[in-house]
Amino acid sequence: MARYIDIHCGFVGATEQQLREAHRDRLAVEGTEGVRFEKAWLDPESGTAFCLCTAPSREAVLRAHERAGDPTAEVYEISIEVAS
Amino acid sequence: MARYIDIHCGFVGATEQQLREAHRDRLAVEGTEGVRFEKAWLDPESGTAFCLCTAPSREAVLRAHERAGDPTAEVYEISIEVAS
Repeated sequence: MARYIDIHCGFVGATEQQLREAHRDRLAVEGTEGVRFEKAWLDPESGTAFCLCTAPSREAVLRAHERAGDPTAEVYEISIEVAS
Repeated sequence: MARYIDIHCGFVGATEQQLREAHRDRLAVEGTEGVRFEKAWLDPESGTAFCLCTAPSREAVLRAHERAGDPTAEVYEISIEVAS
């Protein structure tokens, strides 16, 4: 398992409720791809959303997002993490 | 105070030690701008790094990164967050 951050655009003006619904749609497909979505952040001004997840592969993340209806090609495997 | 994610590129092949040093350089300038850097993630294959921080403004984040020697224009105010 590895960790990934992916980036989505096009969410200008989206609300917390909409982000919550998108996250719920992702959680609904987690099992099919072995992906565990942890967090989602949204900048409603630029319409940019970020997801943090754990998954068996980059391809699994791509497929899970596609199944959830919010495909993105911007998936980064963050193999290194530093916390304060 | 608000939360921000910023994106940096150009770290292809960087190591955990290098990410740790970059993070330390950021922590050293936190006080001057009121920025609190929480986490940094790195995808060494694409050379993409992400920072999560709390700050009084987007401009403060921009200035803190500039002072730390790793400027970026890609700073997103993530006013909405959802966790699983």
